[in-house]
Amino acid sequence: MTDTSTRHLPLLVPACAADAKEGLDAHEAQRYAHVFKALGDPTRLRLVTMVAAHENQEACVCDLTEPLDLGQPTVSHHLKILVDAGILRRDKRGIWSYYSIVPGALQAVGDLLHTLPAAPG
Amino acid sequence: MTDTSTRHLPLLVPACAADAKEGLDAHEAQRYAHVFKALGDPTRLRLVTMVAAHENQEACVCDLTEPLDLGQPTVSHHLKILVDAGILRRDKRGIWSYYSIVPGALQAVGDLLHTLPAAPG
Repeated sequence: MTDTSTRHLPLLVPACAADAKEGLDAHEAQRYAHVFKALGDPTRLRLVTMVAAHENQEACVCDLTEPLDLGQPTVSHHLKILVDAGILRRDKRGIWSYYSIVPGALQAVGDLLHTLPAAPG
Repeated sequence: MTDTSTRHLPLLVPACAADAKEGLDAHEAQRYAHVFKALGDPTRLRLVTMVAAHENQEACVCDLTEPLDLGQPTVSHHLKILVDAGILRRDKRGIWSYYSIVPGALQAVGDLLHTLPAAPG
């Protein structure tokens, strides 16, 4: 997870169904796991859904702290992890940072999950 | 993550788009984050895609160790985490354990990701 080469892959390319059928190779697995790991925390998952629910799908950090009842440093720490994973992008305007979801990022990992067939129940 | 009440939720109910638009509540976030955390490791993600790619979407632990070049105890440890998260189910037959994907589990988390709108690029 310290491999910085994964930081700048915005996952804009949808998962290929053929790849999923063969099982992911090590590089693909690392890339997707980075995103899932970032989503694997309740606070971060709430932050992502709150940003998505916000007007214009963009939220100021000042709007995100109160509903979570957490301090701004904690929220900023979680937001940084989401930015590093390519899920959120940050736009600094004046004294505030605004966060939005990177187009395609969650679609790509959602597509991967939908391509995996389950055995009949 | 030690809350055992989340262990036995197979996530059979697809995510509700309305819920996602409001942002997830704390309980839902914990439930989904448990699944994402389990997927947030390259080895576990490869295991899930390998099981899905296997004939009848079911694989013996003996089929999973060699392609990963890992020992069976390590693979079994990762498989247990995936079972505890409600992603895989284990069926013991004779001396071997067979793993398959819990129907609906990945569909539900994939649906959640697809319901989250991204800001225009």
